[in-house]
Amino acid sequence: MGSIRDKVAIIGMGCTKFGERWDASGEDLIVEAVKEALEDANIELKDVEAAWMGLFYPHISLGPQGMPLSTTLKLPFIPVTRVENACASGTEAVRGAAYAVAAGVCDVALAVGVEKLKDIGFGGLPERNMPAVEGAGRFFFSTVSAPGAFAQMATRYFAKYEIPPDKGKEILARISVKSHEAGALNPKAHLRRRITVEEAVKAPIVAWPLGLYDCCGVSDGAAAAILVPAEKAKEYRDDPIYIKALQVAISSGEELMYNWDGVHVEPTVRAAQRAYKEAGIENPRKELDLLELHDCFSITELVTYEDIGVSPRGRAPEDVMSGFFDLKGEMPCQPDGGLKCFGHPIGASGIRMMYEIYKQLQGKAGERQKQGRCELGLTHNLGGFPFRATIGISILGAHKG
Amino acid sequence: MGSIRDKVAIIGMGCTKFGERWDASGEDLIVEAVKEALEDANIELKDVEAAWMGLFYPHISLGPQGMPLSTTLKLPFIPVTRVENACASGTEAVRGAAYAVAAGVCDVALAVGVEKLKDIGFGGLPERNMPAVEGAGRFFFSTVSAPGAFAQMATRYFAKYEIPPDKGKEILARISVKSHEAGALNPKAHLRRRITVEEAVKAPIVAWPLGLYDCCGVSDGAAAAILVPAEKAKEYRDDPIYIKALQVAISSGEELMYNWDGVHVEPTVRAAQRAYKEAGIENPRKELDLLELHDCFSITELVTYEDIGVSPRGRAPEDVMSGFFDLKGEMPCQPDGGLKCFGHPIGASGIRMMYEIYKQLQGKAGERQKQGRCELGLTHNLGGFPFRATIGISILGAHKG
Repeated sequence: MGSIRDKVAIIGMGCTKFGERWDASGEDLIVEAVKEALEDANIELKDVEAAWMGLFYPHISLGPQGMPLSTTLKLPFIPVTRVENACASGTEAVRGAAYAVAAGVCDVALAVGVEKLKDIGFGGLPERNMPAVEGAGRFFFSTVSAPGAFAQMATRYFAKYEIPPDKGKEILARISVKSHEAGALNPKAHLRRRITVEEAVKAPIVAWPLGLYDCCGVSDGAAAAILVPAEKAKEYRDDPIYIKALQVAISSGEELMYNWDGVHVEPTVRAAQRAYKEAGIENPRKELDLLELHDCFSITELVTYEDIGVSPRGRAPEDVMSGFFDLKGEMPCQPDGGLKCFGHPIGASGIRMMYEIYKQLQGKAGERQKQGRCELGLTHNLGGFPFRATIGISILGAHKG
Repeated sequence: MGSIRDKVAIIGMGCTKFGERWDASGEDLIVEAVKEALEDANIELKDVEAAWMGLFYPHISLGPQGMPLSTTLKLPFIPVTRVENACASGTEAVRGAAYAVAAGVCDVALAVGVEKLKDIGFGGLPERNMPAVEGAGRFFFSTVSAPGAFAQMATRYFAKYEIPPDKGKEILARISVKSHEAGALNPKAHLRRRITVEEAVKAPIVAWPLGLYDCCGVSDGAAAAILVPAEKAKEYRDDPIYIKALQVAISSGEELMYNWDGVHVEPTVRAAQRAYKEAGIENPRKELDLLELHDCFSITELVTYEDIGVSPRGRAPEDVMSGFFDLKGEMPCQPDGGLKCFGHPIGASGIRMMYEIYKQLQGKAGERQKQGRCELGLTHNLGGFPFRATIGISILGAHKG
C-alpha cells in the first residue's frame, strides 16, 4: 500500500446549517454548501473539473447517479460520480476526489455530501416494508434496530469492565453533555441547547441503557470540499489544509462469528491503524490534536476512543470523566457538536466533520477554537454496524511534509 | 485536465455467462467473475488491496455499500467502495480503481460490476410505484419509457436525414443482425441465435419503429478487472492491456432545453472528445480498431457511431449497410454480441464490454477474433437518457507509450 499523504490539499469548504430544513430542498442544500466552498477557495464553479457526490438514499433524497449535482449546479458535462458506502459516503466522496487529484487527472475536484431526510417520506425508524426506504429497511433492520445494536454494545461494555449501570449511564451522559456544550456555540448545528448529566440520565429510554440524549437525530444537510494538488495549494490560499490519510475498512462479517468481544468495531481498528501508517503517526494520543468521531450513539463514541488507540482498552470512561475530550480539554472531540447536535444526513456527515477540522486547523473556529496546538485532526465515520460495518477515516493536517 | 494514459494496466479479467441465471445468486456471480479474473492475472485474492463495485439496484440485487463484495469474497477489511452512475456504473468501478492505482495508494486494485435482475422482483418495465424499483420508476419513467425515448430519437433521425420508414427499419435491423452474428459465437452471451433482417423488421413493435430485436433484454451477470501500475504490469503477464483513457460526462439537462436536434447525445460527444485527447487519438475512424457501444437500442448504437466521431453526421447508415462494423468489417462493433445478446445487468455491462476488448487486444477472442490490426478499442456506456444522460468511455490499448 502506498500513501496519499501530502499529495492533496483542501483549499475550500462549505457546510449548510443542519436541521429540519423545511425551507430547503436537497438541491438548495447542495447550492448552499458548494457556494460557501467556492467562495472560501476563491474560485469559480467553472474551475471545477470533476466531482464526487456522497449520497445514501438517492430515491428519497434527490435522485440517482451524479445527476442531482449536475442539474443543480448546471455543471457543463464534467464527470460527476456518486459514491455510496453507507454512513461513510461523505468520506468516500472526498476519497474519490483526492485519488483523482493525486492521480494527476484533474487539478480542481469537488466533493459534496448531501442528504435530505425531512419532509420526503423518511421516518427515522422505518417499517420493514415501507416502500420509500425499502433499502434502509433491509440495511439497518434485518436483524436488529440501530439503537438496539448499540445498546447491546453498551451493556456488554458495562459487564466486561464491571461498571455499575448507574455509573455507566453517567459516563454515557457525560459524552453527550460535552457535545451539547460545543454544539450550543455552533450556529450551523441543529440542536443548540446545553444539557446536564441529570437531564441525560433521566431522559426517556430508547433502548436501555441508551436514552434520548444518547442518540443522534435525523436531519437535512450538505457539506462540500474543493481539492487541488498539494504543491499548487498555496496558489489559492495561505492556509490550505493537507490530507494526511484517507482510509476505508469494511467488515466481511467474519470477525463477528468467532470470539467477538462485542465492545469494539474491528474495521475501525484496521482503518485507524492504516491511517496512522499513511499519515506517519506513531502515537495518536500524543500526536492528534482533535477528533470528530461518529457519535450516532454515545456508546459508539466511547468505544471508538479505544478503537482508534487514543484511550487504552477499558479506559475511555476515565478520559471522558476527566474532561480529556471536552472542548477545553487536551483533545477536543466533536468540537462542532458532533452527530449529537447536527443529526445525521447520511451522505453529508463525513464532510461536515472535515469542515470542522478544517476550520479548527486554520484557527477559524471562533468561540469553539481549540486553544494550544491545533495541527492534526481525525474524522471517523461508521456505518452498517454490526454485520456490514464500514468505516471511513480521514486525517487532516495544517502543514505539509 | 491531466491524463490517465499509460499509468495503469489491466492484468486480469473475468466475466460470467450472462442471462437468466436462475442457477446463481448475485453473490455467486461475483465469485464466478472474480475467480476468473484472479486466475487470469495469476494472483491470489489476498493480493488485492482495495476494490470498487459498480451496482445500480442495491436493494434488489445484493445490498447497499461495498458489503456484498466484502462478505462474498471474505475480504479482510480492505476498502470496498460502491460507485453508481446509472448504466455507466461498471465503467465507474474501473475508473475508481484506476485512479487509486495511478495515485500510488495501491498496487493491486479490483473492479467488479454486478447486477442480479432476474428472480428478485425486477420486472423489466416497472410500474410507477412498484416498491422494489421505486428508484427505477423515478429514474427512467418519470416522463417517458426508455423504448419510448429512443423511439423518438429514431423517428427524428429518419425525418432529419429523409430516410423512408421501411429503409429506416432495415438499417436498424442490420445493426441487430450484425450483433446477433457475433453473439451466436460467444458462449458467454445470453441470446446466441442468428437473426435475419426480415425477422427483425417483422418482429413485434415495442415502440415504433423499435421492434423486439431493436431492444436489448434484461439479464443477470458480473464482470471483474484487476488493475496494477503500468510499469509493474509485465511482472504479472506478457500481454497486459493498458488504460489509454477513462472519461465520464453527465448532462445537466440544459442542452435539451434549447435547440436540441434530438439525434445526438451531447455527453457522448463531450466524453469522446476528452477521451481522444487523453489517449492521444486524432482520427478515431482511422486509429480505433474495434468498439463496444451501449446498444440498449439499435438506434442508440447508430447515433453513437456519429457521436464518437467514427461515422460522419448522417452517414452512420452507410457504414452499417456496408458492413464497416461487422465482425469481419474494418471496425467490428459489439464483437461479443453487445447488450443485444448479453442483456444489461446494469452494473456489469461496462466491465463486460472491457472484457471483450481486453481479450480481442490479446488475440484471445477465438472465433470472434478481429483479423488484422487490433491494438486500440473503445467502450461506451450510456445511462439516464435523455434528461439525466451519463456517459462512461474507456479506451484500452495493447501497447504502452
